[in-house]
Amino acid sequence: MSLSTQPYKGARDFYPEDKRLQKYLFSTMRRVVERFGYEEYDAPILESLDLYKAKSGEEIVNEQTYAFTDRGGREVVIRPEMTPSVSRMVAGRRQELGYPLRWYSIPNLWRYERPQRGRLREHWQLNVDVFGIDNLNAEHELIVLADAIIREYGAKRTMYTIQLNSRKLMDYIMNDYLDLDSVQSHTLSKLIDRINKMERPAFVAACDALFTPTQRDNGASQKLLEILAVKSVSDLPQVIQDTPAAIEIRDLLQLLDASGVTNAEFDITIMRGFDYYTGIVFEMMDTDPENNRAMFGGGRYDGLVGLFGVEPVPTVGFGWGDVTLANFLETHDLLPKLTSETEVYAILIGDVYNEAQRLLATLRSEGVTIAVDSSGRKLASQLKNAVKKDIRFALFIGEDELKSGQFNLKDLRSGEELKLSAERVVSTVLDGRRQ
Amino acid sequence: MSLSTQPYKGARDFYPEDKRLQKYLFSTMRRVVERFGYEEYDAPILESLDLYKAKSGEEIVNEQTYAFTDRGGREVVIRPEMTPSVSRMVAGRRQELGYPLRWYSIPNLWRYERPQRGRLREHWQLNVDVFGIDNLNAEHELIVLADAIIREYGAKRTMYTIQLNSRKLMDYIMNDYLDLDSVQSHTLSKLIDRINKMERPAFVAACDALFTPTQRDNGASQKLLEILAVKSVSDLPQVIQDTPAAIEIRDLLQLLDASGVTNAEFDITIMRGFDYYTGIVFEMMDTDPENNRAMFGGGRYDGLVGLFGVEPVPTVGFGWGDVTLANFLETHDLLPKLTSETEVYAILIGDVYNEAQRLLATLRSEGVTIAVDSSGRKLASQLKNAVKKDIRFALFIGEDELKSGQFNLKDLRSGEELKLSAERVVSTVLDGRRQ
Repeated sequence: MSLSTQPYKGARDFYPEDKRLQKYLFSTMRRVVERFGYEEYDAPILESLDLYKAKSGEEIVNEQTYAFTDRGGREVVIRPEMTPSVSRMVAGRRQELGYPLRWYSIPNLWRYERPQRGRLREHWQLNVDVFGIDNLNAEHELIVLADAIIREYGAKRTMYTIQLNSRKLMDYIMNDYLDLDSVQSHTLSKLIDRINKMERPAFVAACDALFTPTQRDNGASQKLLEILAVKSVSDLPQVIQDTPAAIEIRDLLQLLDASGVTNAEFDITIMRGFDYYTGIVFEMMDTDPENNRAMFGGGRYDGLVGLFGVEPVPTVGFGWGDVTLANFLETHDLLPKLTSETEVYAILIGDVYNEAQRLLATLRSEGVTIAVDSSGRKLASQLKNAVKKDIRFALFIGEDELKSGQFNLKDLRSGEELKLSAERVVSTVLDGRRQ
Repeated sequence: MSLSTQPYKGARDFYPEDKRLQKYLFSTMRRVVERFGYEEYDAPILESLDLYKAKSGEEIVNEQTYAFTDRGGREVVIRPEMTPSVSRMVAGRRQELGYPLRWYSIPNLWRYERPQRGRLREHWQLNVDVFGIDNLNAEHELIVLADAIIREYGAKRTMYTIQLNSRKLMDYIMNDYLDLDSVQSHTLSKLIDRINKMERPAFVAACDALFTPTQRDNGASQKLLEILAVKSVSDLPQVIQDTPAAIEIRDLLQLLDASGVTNAEFDITIMRGFDYYTGIVFEMMDTDPENNRAMFGGGRYDGLVGLFGVEPVPTVGFGWGDVTLANFLETHDLLPKLTSETEVYAILIGDVYNEAQRLLATLRSEGVTIAVDSSGRKLASQLKNAVKKDIRFALFIGEDELKSGQFNLKDLRSGEELKLSAERVVSTVLDGRRQ
């Protein structure tokens, strides 16, 4: 029986054309993130299970991880997210690192779940975190940065919105305004997190069910539904508007607006799945109804570094998946046409493989990327191969050419063919990069 | 109890200074490999266990893999090597791909073993493969390419040697010349693979033990030890020298010599661990006795793609680990001094975070990488932070500066401080990249 050629379910093979797209996505991220002074780090893809037990959402640890016991009896996990790892690393050098500390990574992450549009078992995720800033400048910087990334891909601000909420605000609403206990609050926050995936009557019934009879008599359901319908901070009941958490949201929206990020808005239904957030949370949404989902999300989590037995560090971060990003760019027709990294296809006329080596070495030392078709097939089928591989130039090398030092270089895009010295081959190809 | 800040045993955290080194290693690999017309691909880090059962060495599958059963009951492995995955991918599009096909990848690989110098549980490995060339041009190209990579890091040919052998030659020696059966041959090839790790008497005794009394009487041990002591093809018994396999080794050494690779040599003890090799095998060795180990290895494996039920494809490939490479560069003092990706540290004088945003956006849009210290601490401690982070320039931004449009830019390397317009700040920083 022969083996299957399929990749593992929910994961992707990256053939060169797929890898080129990934490299374009990642190099764009790196370029923009580094302009904001962030430095790249990485951590092992395997981590101890303990690391996730206390800090991620329960669903992730219990049902969605790739957890197993290694040959030495250690419980390990293929990381489902990067935040616990980066917190561990910062804690490990808590004293030596200089703050504010700006770090990013593009880790490979795994979750066991049913593959669907925008959700695969394996994905990559840009993680950007700033450590050591305890005020809104951190949230402001990260949202401006995310905005700069998506615009670097060519997006316009009409194509996406940035939604803000605050865990502190929601805590106030649930604990103080609605007078819920901690179990009720936790259940309610998970419900709100799923509000857009539920039918309205089911959501209302589920909210109703979690209140006590007394709370229900006091109109808790009504109060909750009114609050969840609010579209701006100024529509909230005055007592909520006056809380520091609500003021913070307003201030951040103002700061963003002053920086040109005019498409940010308050959205009281944004919860984010992870339990570790402690303040502002945010998401970026595609405005196209065909792709109406969160592209990335993040927020403030001031408590994680402290779990490692060191003084806590105020932290704001976000994660941005490659699959949701690619879906967004595809939806808005923003994917560029990418061509092969190989610029020249060398076609050998006759048995000149050995004699051609010096020329090839010269061209390569000048930075030209060049593949040799040493198959000995007919010129026409070698040329066809160059076209198939989406290579721009064909260079013909035979005995006469090597003797005269003059080579035919054919631009397969324009059809133009020129007789050139090796030096001119180099300059023509390098000029071609700018077109 | 607080959580440990240590990474998983045998794996590494990459703090920014470590990641910079990795990026230097990998970008150098990519640059050289792409000059030879290779295109990058990738595959999922999880693969089906079946993929490895038939094709890797037994030790790897049975004792060294990270294998487990996923939540859906599938037996999966965190890939220990890339060759089975790339063979699977080529087989999956056997008909559509154009040959010769040149692919490379720098995958993350895992093996469960005792961590030691040059061997960790997690490592990365440059994998380069050429598919569809059934003659020595393939082996020649890959060895020239490996040589070009190591020289791109600054190595001289006195620092390493390239060792060649041939599985076909060894098969002839074992099956025909020594008249061993297949079990004996397999045992002997594993013994030879470990020859440099064994004491001489133990090796001789182990060889002796695998022969039958008749073979021993015919002087098999003597013949074997004589052959293993040979330093060049021309020292082999004439009957072996006349085999196509021996002629192939000579031809390849000649081809390499003509391309300037003068430090390649025949080494009859090179076996390579994997069972799938079918022809020439090769390794690169550090000549420094302090680091006397194989840096990378590879060879011809013409049978793997065919295991997926398609027509086989002749293939030559090699793998080159990041850990052994870094050890080599360190041993020969070839590691460059790398500095932060962040070029400018913006020091805010007073509460000008909001007012500074436009200037920061301008500098970034010109490509300057710039981190903001919005901590509000004393100038001296902000400056100290810039030095600690190994950032080249400090830029001072206060109300007066924003009003006048003239900013003090301090070169923390030379100590020079200039008053410049935003435009001149950009040109000074970009000029700094070339120094």
